[in-house]
Amino acid sequence: MTAVRRVGVLGARGKVGAEVVRAVEEADDLELVASLDAGDALEELVSAGAEAVVDFTHPDAVMDSLRFCAEHGIHAVVGTTGFDDERLATLRGWLGDDPGAGVLIAPNFSIGAVLMMRFAAAAAPFYESVEIVELHHPTKADAPSGTARRTAELVAAARREAGLGPVPDATSTGLDGARGADVAGVHVHSVRARGLVAHQEVLLGGVGETLTIRHDSMDRASFTPGVLAGLRWIADHPGLTVGLEHVLDLD
Amino acid sequence: MTAVRRVGVLGARGKVGAEVVRAVEEADDLELVASLDAGDALEELVSAGAEAVVDFTHPDAVMDSLRFCAEHGIHAVVGTTGFDDERLATLRGWLGDDPGAGVLIAPNFSIGAVLMMRFAAAAAPFYESVEIVELHHPTKADAPSGTARRTAELVAAARREAGLGPVPDATSTGLDGARGADVAGVHVHSVRARGLVAHQEVLLGGVGETLTIRHDSMDRASFTPGVLAGLRWIADHPGLTVGLEHVLDLD
Amino acid sequence: MTAVRRVGVLGARGKVGAEVVRAVEEADDLELVASLDAGDALEELVSAGAEAVVDFTHPDAVMDSLRFCAEHGIHAVVGTTGFDDERLATLRGWLGDDPGAGVLIAPNFSIGAVLMMRFAAAAAPFYESVEIVELHHPTKADAPSGTARRTAELVAAARREAGLGPVPDATSTGLDGARGADVAGVHVHSVRARGLVAHQEVLLGGVGETLTIRHDSMDRASFTPGVLAGLRWIADHPGLTVGLEHVLDLD
Amino acid sequence: MTAVRRVGVLGARGKVGAEVVRAVEEADDLELVASLDAGDALEELVSAGAEAVVDFTHPDAVMDSLRFCAEHGIHAVVGTTGFDDERLATLRGWLGDDPGAGVLIAPNFSIGAVLMMRFAAAAAPFYESVEIVELHHPTKADAPSGTARRTAELVAAARREAGLGPVPDATSTGLDGARGADVAGVHVHSVRARGLVAHQEVLLGGVGETLTIRHDSMDRASFTPGVLAGLRWIADHPGLTVGLEHVLDLD
Repeated sequence: MTAVRRVGVLGARGKVGAEVVRAVEEADDLELVASLDAGDALEELVSAGAEAVVDFTHPDAVMDSLRFCAEHGIHAVVGTTGFDDERLATLRGWLGDDPGAGVLIAPNFSIGAVLMMRFAAAAAPFYESVEIVELHHPTKADAPSGTARRTAELVAAARREAGLGPVPDATSTGLDGARGADVAGVHVHSVRARGLVAHQEVLLGGVGETLTIRHDSMDRASFTPGVLAGLRWIADHPGLTVGLEHVLDLD
Repeated sequence: MTAVRRVGVLGARGKVGAEVVRAVEEADDLELVASLDAGDALEELVSAGAEAVVDFTHPDAVMDSLRFCAEHGIHAVVGTTGFDDERLATLRGWLGDDPGAGVLIAPNFSIGAVLMMRFAAAAAPFYESVEIVELHHPTKADAPSGTARRTAELVAAARREAGLGPVPDATSTGLDGARGADVAGVHVHSVRARGLVAHQEVLLGGVGETLTIRHDSMDRASFTPGVLAGLRWIADHPGLTVGLEHVLDLD
Repeated sequence: MTAVRRVGVLGARGKVGAEVVRAVEEADDLELVASLDAGDALEELVSAGAEAVVDFTHPDAVMDSLRFCAEHGIHAVVGTTGFDDERLATLRGWLGDDPGAGVLIAPNFSIGAVLMMRFAAAAAPFYESVEIVELHHPTKADAPSGTARRTAELVAAARREAGLGPVPDATSTGLDGARGADVAGVHVHSVRARGLVAHQEVLLGGVGETLTIRHDSMDRASFTPGVLAGLRWIADHPGLTVGLEHVLDLD
Repeated sequence: MTAVRRVGVLGARGKVGAEVVRAVEEADDLELVASLDAGDALEELVSAGAEAVVDFTHPDAVMDSLRFCAEHGIHAVVGTTGFDDERLATLRGWLGDDPGAGVLIAPNFSIGAVLMMRFAAAAAPFYESVEIVELHHPTKADAPSGTARRTAELVAAARREAGLGPVPDATSTGLDGARGADVAGVHVHSVRARGLVAHQEVLLGGVGETLTIRHDSMDRASFTPGVLAGLRWIADHPGLTVGLEHVLDLD
């Protein structure tokens, strides 16, 4: 097993980047060698001897950084958003047929959120009913959350593949909105209350029993174990990988 | 303390009545002396020496039964629905100024559901946010449930009285229904899944903390302790009483 | 895919067997052709043309039944307890090198319980902490439950394999029993309360987040979907199989 | 209603005091006029015109501060520990028969924790079973928590007063500790896991139903609303008061 030791952080002065900086500093097997933010020269990564970078920056900046990394054989663990098929194809081109560097891009670095989604999809074929309740602080602008939508889509796909029809629901009278939002046939409910941080519950129901998978994120720092797991995995996995589930070996 | 011992059950052959019959038979301090259903003569209550009846019948039948009980000084514990102000006034007239009998009418005989509603209303003034999630089997026709609507109204009234404004909610983008139904300003979510019976959760949220009150009803028989509590209370409380909370001494 | 259609039930007059009888009768793709109990002749299975049996009987009876089934090429789905290595070896001998019949033995036919155990073990390597709370009716004689013990052992094995040390626990002062029972280094808590049926929660915790997997069994019938899944799977899987997880294709 | 406006904070440089400072500064109806810590002269409270103080300091220091406040007619809201009957009697002596100042001492300023305890005790007479699960971070030294012990004692007292006997429990075989710690006949379970902050669940169970009251404290700041409520209440309540429940008007 090859292991990255020297790490550079891009976006180091942002809220998320600052958490990454702290997590890398606290990890015994990693060393923080560069902390860059907008305006800093990427060449510093080379002079500092960075073997890998963590990039939580901006869609406008990330492609330039990744091209630089690919050219210099620096691995990248990327939480920046905005990757579409075109960008991914471009990345693959830069990495080439015999990539010297690995790039891991993940929309969600929370290990718990990824496990919740995978378990929900794995259990879905065995249950007649499934419903999602996500709970967040009241300053969140979107409802349902992106994680809830993604979970619903994964669960709906697993149900289709297993040949399951629509969930049973005899509701014939009621108030608008009571049964939540419909995402690919899965009912999703969004609770917003002061004191909450970020929580989600997937409830699967069959005759006489329910199975509930719940993820509670109480702290912004909860994504850092996923980033560290990515750093420890990337040197052995050259080329482009999308999704933390590959790091968690859940396939 | 006066105590009822000899009990008659009206609607004894219905599903609910059958549970009452069983609960009265199993109670050491009570004796089942009459089991009547549609078509049976109310006079049997008198000949059997019933001191109290339990009535889970039909709105069409209940007023005749209660007039008979009032005339014969028989106490009544009533779970039948359909009582409006007019019916309650009629009942008060029958009982008179110096009532010899007590009549307890309650829309909900589940002690847990009543406690949940009272606690939610008592806590509401201290919390910026409150939201309700109710969960039932998928053959339920209405959403939200009657208990959830009633809880929302009680909570909303307690907030108004405490001078609280609307709950905080920054949702600006999303899918229809995600934020649930609006009952008097309180968001209510209805989950329907196979395996569930009847459950409700009231979530109150303030800075850095949440308080959750949850009631799980796993069995049809869960209302019988409330009926027995009513039977043990009624002899000392002549006249008309509406609501199990008075029996539970929560006022 | 081969499919069993004609099913015999052994132990048909027991509580569990009666649920199996009902479930087979209600399944569109299965036909109940024989209902046997202690004292009935196994030959009836042959004359009725049973292709498979379900056996929820007694350790004293089950081996005779399984030998009969093996000799007559009848598949068996078995929930009876008491199988040790010796019995399993004997069974393998009866089935032979080219088995015409399949035998599925499972200590737990609840799909939800099996999924909970598998998900808990799959998640365990990613979490510093793990703890189990199981909740049952107060007439249960053993604490912790067999499922909780088995879950703890699976989780502990997964932690060992991932190189994790003991769970963090700074408790230095307290009352006996507060931290629960120790099963292979995993703390297990047993709650007993009227109104509960059979429930279990596995709580996994890491920096800033927790993942909770909860199974609620509200009804004795909750094991029947697992039995039916076994019946639909057995014809394609000759020989001996132990554990419902193989049917659920979770390996 | 009389209202305090000008507030001094004692112990202002401690972790808890710093949260109080911030909360007072953020409250529209309050003004922070003095921030003192060990070594600072109490006379500053007088010169700054403080009408009330908040004291989260040390048992060694608090009595001197409270004598000073009593002598100068300054109200006090006190979260410092270590008050026994002797200290309370001394305080009452200082305040005199016609107290000009109010002193509120509370072992717990979390509104949610206080509500949970009160609701649990109010519900206890109606339930055959009750059990407590408390969940905290793994660096906590004591198990069970002080709040859990106090809750168990309140619940046990309510059961005794209602004439209830021991909780039903048929456990006859098992592992040491599985059934938790015994506090006045109530089983208490302590879960410790990374990612948790401070949580407690009281589960009450009767025939076919359970009522669960759960408090989740996700942030150190969750006690500040209780302190502010005390400050808004104290001017109208001269003399000594012990317990936040009086402020919450739950008696």
